[in-house]
Amino acid sequence: MSTYIERIGAAAAAAAQELNRLTTEQKNACLLAAAEALVNRQADILLANEEDLKKAEEKGMRSAMVDRLRLTASRIEDMAEGLRQVAALPDPLGEVMMDIQRPNGLWIRQIRVPMGVVGIIYEARPNVTADAFALCFKTGNAVILRGGSDAISSNRAITAVLRQTLEGQGITPDAVCLVEDTSRESAQAMMQLRGVIDVLIPRGGAGLIRSVVENSTVPVIETGSGNCHIYVDKDADLPMAVRIIHNAKTQRTSVCNACESLVIHREIADEAIPMIASNLLASDVEIRGDEKVCSLVPQAIPATEEDWGMEYLDRIISIKVVDSLEEAVRHINRYNTKHSEAIITENPEASQYFLQQVDAACVYVNASTRFTDGFEFGFGAEIGISTQKLHARGPMGLTALTTTKYEIIGNGQIRG
Amino acid sequence: MSTYIERIGAAAAAAAQELNRLTTEQKNACLLAAAEALVNRQADILLANEEDLKKAEEKGMRSAMVDRLRLTASRIEDMAEGLRQVAALPDPLGEVMMDIQRPNGLWIRQIRVPMGVVGIIYEARPNVTADAFALCFKTGNAVILRGGSDAISSNRAITAVLRQTLEGQGITPDAVCLVEDTSRESAQAMMQLRGVIDVLIPRGGAGLIRSVVENSTVPVIETGSGNCHIYVDKDADLPMAVRIIHNAKTQRTSVCNACESLVIHREIADEAIPMIASNLLASDVEIRGDEKVCSLVPQAIPATEEDWGMEYLDRIISIKVVDSLEEAVRHINRYNTKHSEAIITENPEASQYFLQQVDAACVYVNASTRFTDGFEFGFGAEIGISTQKLHARGPMGLTALTTTKYEIIGNGQIRG
Repeated sequence: MSTYIERIGAAAAAAAQELNRLTTEQKNACLLAAAEALVNRQADILLANEEDLKKAEEKGMRSAMVDRLRLTASRIEDMAEGLRQVAALPDPLGEVMMDIQRPNGLWIRQIRVPMGVVGIIYEARPNVTADAFALCFKTGNAVILRGGSDAISSNRAITAVLRQTLEGQGITPDAVCLVEDTSRESAQAMMQLRGVIDVLIPRGGAGLIRSVVENSTVPVIETGSGNCHIYVDKDADLPMAVRIIHNAKTQRTSVCNACESLVIHREIADEAIPMIASNLLASDVEIRGDEKVCSLVPQAIPATEEDWGMEYLDRIISIKVVDSLEEAVRHINRYNTKHSEAIITENPEASQYFLQQVDAACVYVNASTRFTDGFEFGFGAEIGISTQKLHARGPMGLTALTTTKYEIIGNGQIRG
Repeated sequence: MSTYIERIGAAAAAAAQELNRLTTEQKNACLLAAAEALVNRQADILLANEEDLKKAEEKGMRSAMVDRLRLTASRIEDMAEGLRQVAALPDPLGEVMMDIQRPNGLWIRQIRVPMGVVGIIYEARPNVTADAFALCFKTGNAVILRGGSDAISSNRAITAVLRQTLEGQGITPDAVCLVEDTSRESAQAMMQLRGVIDVLIPRGGAGLIRSVVENSTVPVIETGSGNCHIYVDKDADLPMAVRIIHNAKTQRTSVCNACESLVIHREIADEAIPMIASNLLASDVEIRGDEKVCSLVPQAIPATEEDWGMEYLDRIISIKVVDSLEEAVRHINRYNTKHSEAIITENPEASQYFLQQVDAACVYVNASTRFTDGFEFGFGAEIGISTQKLHARGPMGLTALTTTKYEIIGNGQIRG
């Protein structure tokens, strides 16, 4: 296994050297050609996807998962549109971050360059295949894709189209390498390719992400898991709180920026909790609350310690009552996953304290946590949402796939 | 062990929350007070250092190592001066990286914030203790210091002075926490404190760094090891090449930015190699070369495959002859540690190719690799030199110890 993965790593590393020399125009032309090819060859892709769907049905996959796996003409058009959008984004490479001349005459420039080789480990979402290629290619990186076994036929078909397009444009097809062995061992072997893969980005459920974080010697960008809170302050506009909570909890429950837990100031609990609870119950949301919540909401289930740390990704929400803003912040910092946290308040001092003291990638005042998203932030594309502090934090656009390099020009300087 | 380290982690995490609220003025006053206290209490520190030196002598420590361990009044003054310099640097916190308003009215600001808790694992250099504290404190971080057993008395004395200074300024002493247990297990336990320690920075030899990189689940910034090359192009100014190579190899041999290997274009080998070799031999540098080098330099020892990858940190250099610039770049990218690489050439096309194609933090044209250093780059201080591509690359100043946070202000926005 490890030699198989090492071979792929070597091919990708060689490709990275070549990609580094492409112009923005060459890259954009290739992305547009790939978009066209995906649409033109959709019959092949849909046929391959049929195979995956048949196997999924045989093994009794949950319908939500089957839906993520399924491709249609319109979803292939969405993929193609994604490639076109990335082509339209500005090329971050070559950006000059620093440009100074030292007293000794040395001219030091820090410029934005590709990472080199990016590894993506993901689950059964074939759209990630085209997406990840586009973002990595635009930033001059070669990408090694290791998707889940459930989508292997679809991924093979999509990658074949991308590789043929690259060749047609006179570019090495190894700019995108698919790991066709989808065993646990192939993922493990990728995690050990330190020095070949420059960064590994896991995209998927909490289990996948934890496994990569714990086992990889390749630097990792942790993405995704979100135990997001909304704190309703004593000075909240309650109708606004009800609207925002409804949106953050119910608009889409399976996503990382959905709200999983509410924290309510005791002073307004008697008024706020029944309002919020009846609104959520009407949308079939199960409520798990502390003693105070259960005393106010007959339908509420007593929350356990475990509930405070849960990312339900479902129509369930936990609710805790606190005595102060400070206690709310302590509770959130203890149980959150550093993703997205919100305060609802009309009090500027409270919002300032919350913004500063809550430790998370995105901290909101009077808005839904659902906005944590590369498109909503205006980045035009997103490779994931980083929940770590190193390198990139929050929604990651193209620059998260780049690094920098110092170029130092002298005329014979030596150090004294 | 792990409960001992967890207790320290919890103390540091609590301190981080408090440090986040300090003003720049409070932090600078504290750094200046700490500088004064180190000088005033130098008797205590020197006494503690005596203990370490006595133990080092008993165990027969190498004299170069003993020298790194030894403190003197003047070295304590240097430490104090380091603190004063950090006080004088601009505070990077609060810098606004992005400030936009979205069409839906959401106001999104990306601001620079502290990492939280920084862990430093280092060897027997007590000056790192004051240094690392200063850089972390200025950037609003709590720091957990785990130095080597050989310097434990010195580290305890220095940390005591720092902690008392903090308390005197009304700041939590847990802003700097020393791990007094210097067993292998204490370092291992730190590497598992994911979610408590936000970044771990190993400073020391290649073995220490490798161990942290391989075993840590906490995100790591890899520092230090440097197998730095100088490539002498066919269009090089040879006297300049001789001067730069002499400086990069001999000015200080034990440092990561010293030159360890030369790559010489075959067209000029007959002229260049004898000039360079005789200059290096006159400074007692051992030469390990390929066949061509050995044919030109009688004193040269045949290089093995292993030599190309060696960071000697000593008066030894390897020399390889190549047929082309392209071969030079391939050789360097294969064996280097992504630290600092130089080309000596008068040919702008060659230097452009080298700058673009060599994969390293710092790439030089016609200058010594010895300039890779935070002070030489004008950053005023340095927490280390990153040889990885994630988060920070090359000499790391204060901003490398920070992350960012998105603050999103709304007035009731929900996602449609």
